Amino acid sequence: MRAEIITIGDELLIGQVVDTNSAWMAQRLNEIGIEVYQITSVHDNREHILQALDGAFSRVDIVLTTGGLGPTKDDITKHVMCAYFGTSLVEDSRVREHICELYKERPDVLNRLTATQWLVPKSAIILPNRVGSAPIMVFSQHSKFLIAMPGVPHEMKIAMLEQVLPYVKLKVRGERLEAGDIIHKTMLLTGIPESKLAILIEEWEKALPASMHLAYLPKDGIIRLRLSSYGEATIDEIEQRLADLRPLIAEFLLAAEDLPLEVILGNLLKEHQQTIVTAESCTGGRLAAVLNAQSGSSAYYMGSVVAYDNSVKEQVLGVQHDTLMKWGAVSEQTVREMAERVRFLMHADYAIATSGIAGPTGGTDDKPVGTVWIAWATPEGTEAERFHFGTAREREQITQRAVTAALVRMIKIISDRL
Amino acid sequence: MRAEIITIGDELLIGQVVDTNSAWMAQRLNEIGIEVYQITSVHDNREHILQALDGAFSRVDIVLTTGGLGPTKDDITKHVMCAYFGTSLVEDSRVREHICELYKERPDVLNRLTATQWLVPKSAIILPNRVGSAPIMVFSQHSKFLIAMPGVPHEMKIAMLEQVLPYVKLKVRGERLEAGDIIHKTMLLTGIPESKLAILIEEWEKALPASMHLAYLPKDGIIRLRLSSYGEATIDEIEQRLADLRPLIAEFLLAAEDLPLEVILGNLLKEHQQTIVTAESCTGGRLAAVLNAQSGSSAYYMGSVVAYDNSVKEQVLGVQHDTLMKWGAVSEQTVREMAERVRFLMHADYAIATSGIAGPTGGTDDKPVGTVWIAWATPEGTEAERFHFGTAREREQITQRAVTAALVRMIKIISDRL
Repeated sequence: MRAEIITIGDELLIGQVVDTNSAWMAQRLNEIGIEVYQITSVHDNREHILQALDGAFSRVDIVLTTGGLGPTKDDITKHVMCAYFGTSLVEDSRVREHICELYKERPDVLNRLTATQWLVPKSAIILPNRVGSAPIMVFSQHSKFLIAMPGVPHEMKIAMLEQVLPYVKLKVRGERLEAGDIIHKTMLLTGIPESKLAILIEEWEKALPASMHLAYLPKDGIIRLRLSSYGEATIDEIEQRLADLRPLIAEFLLAAEDLPLEVILGNLLKEHQQTIVTAESCTGGRLAAVLNAQSGSSAYYMGSVVAYDNSVKEQVLGVQHDTLMKWGAVSEQTVREMAERVRFLMHADYAIATSGIAGPTGGTDDKPVGTVWIAWATPEGTEAERFHFGTAREREQITQRAVTAALVRMIKIISDRL
Repeated sequence: MRAEIITIGDELLIGQVVDTNSAWMAQRLNEIGIEVYQITSVHDNREHILQALDGAFSRVDIVLTTGGLGPTKDDITKHVMCAYFGTSLVEDSRVREHICELYKERPDVLNRLTATQWLVPKSAIILPNRVGSAPIMVFSQHSKFLIAMPGVPHEMKIAMLEQVLPYVKLKVRGERLEAGDIIHKTMLLTGIPESKLAILIEEWEKALPASMHLAYLPKDGIIRLRLSSYGEATIDEIEQRLADLRPLIAEFLLAAEDLPLEVILGNLLKEHQQTIVTAESCTGGRLAAVLNAQSGSSAYYMGSVVAYDNSVKEQVLGVQHDTLMKWGAVSEQTVREMAERVRFLMHADYAIATSGIAGPTGGTDDKPVGTVWIAWATPEGTEAERFHFGTAREREQITQRAVTAALVRMIKIISDRL
């Protein structure tokens, strides 16, 4: 079964806001066997919304929308949907009670604009929005379903998980729900260019049945290789295909699942009850942030020193003044000392240190923008490597590449060690 | 003039990748006076791409696409566009030379799949892709233009800035280019709910001409209030409207421009030649990362200690053992000491410290998930505040709210002080 997503809001089309809702929604819909055929972003404009609804319903039976449900004048979604389904607004006492309860300690929010939020389309089913004032609306007509949700990601996610997905499973899909009718299997590979990988596994790829599809997603030196199966194959058949593939790519395989690198590393550390810390110059806290992004990271991640200024490298980390003077901050010697010092200071098993030139300024002939030294300290000693992430890249990309490279090598070092 | 963006790739529709390209492209197009009417994400599927092209060209004259231009079998965009414009592929010697030069030190990439990249549509104008192998293709027919770019954000951005935008300005818009025909002015407000703000400025908003449009974008306790003008008004007229608005909202105004909070803070610090550092527990390095995300941040940002484990709070930061034992890590006393200690250790003018329970586990009745203490240390003393970012929120959102709250107050403290 197919659905489409329509995201509504001028902010998306002038580039003020990136649409992160659609990708998250698509993942959740895939999990219950619903394919997303198209994602469309449209203006807060009556004609445009109507046209997008017409287009989507010509292709699929379920349309989910986000956005345009606020109490202010620019938000018109509710009125346009009333027009589309030929219904009008009526007061809903349950929604009114919910909103009054939600804002009982904030009387300044309970004003006449907020009061418009408890006017709901007469013909729509209203699902509760536990954390916000905009009700979730379900319209249905001739076996077509339209579900309108707020655009604030936090409210949309709770609405999806608690209301919309159970509703869609029960009411829209009815008996047709089958686990595993859309399956995506993704592996992470590193150390091989995309085109070379494609040639390496060409025969295997050619032998795939029509219901299976292979995609290559290269980014930051990692290739995510995704096998998607639509409908026909059983899980066993897919597993057999992957088992045939594995020996061909074994030397490049970083992980057999599409997990973030920090999760792969965190799982390794948790499993072996070991700890990690970081000392960061050019990555500026980003390695720390990814290492503690997961719940439960306090089991293996202890802390970091972001030593942006050289005085912090010396006085907080304890890198020797002579090292910095003789070799400079972006050098093998400095980054090794940073890793070893932070590992010692925080009594950790592993430490990663970074120092580089993220640009756009600060590069020299000898150390151009994009030069990054990374060191990995372990109980057995320290490794270090110089990377060139390219002068043409943006600051953010250079630090992102450095974070990725730091995690990839740390995963390999720990996997090989244990 | 209007354009549309079509992003091509199954990865977008299964939610594996968030489409960040479109927002960035829309900003750049707006800057040269081109409005983006719709953004559509479609599958790597011949029929779907053809249908999306038909739809887009029924509404606008310029269509930009990203994605599907890789050398592997899943990437079909080039072939589909040949079919759409009734042309075929021919070898392009300049593209061939460029690719051979690009990969001269990586012979393993110069294989037969990569060689397909120098086959280009006969009727298309080819613009060079300086950093990648997929050429940028411009098709034109009956005053309709299609520009196809690679989907890798880094390649797309360089293609847009160096090739596509200059081309669009010259060839597509011709003489019609007028600076300032689409203007967006955004202010940042804090400390007022969206609906209350709307009532506060209702009369002013009602008096806006039809060519101007006001939008409210609330997120993380900040409202971005955006006035958009399409066409008619002059810059002076828009400035007059904003001048009329300003006294109404003065007490809630955080910034008169839509700059990231860290840029507002960085500009303040740079202007006054002052420095900032952080000591982070629950925000885990995210404050550090946003503070050094800008080029030139080394002028005001010195470093941070991410003190995730209590041993790091004591041994690296120097928080007293008794404080942690008596009041706990998430307490006013601890967070004040963290801020004061890191300010002292790194010899900075200002320090921000955070300690909280980001969840989903670790909450108690007394300190539920979402409780965050933040302290701001200045030369005159230290302020601290307890926040409740809500038990229903995700870990990432709680830390994001904490980062925002930390920056907002720091901006206010420095603005008031200086």
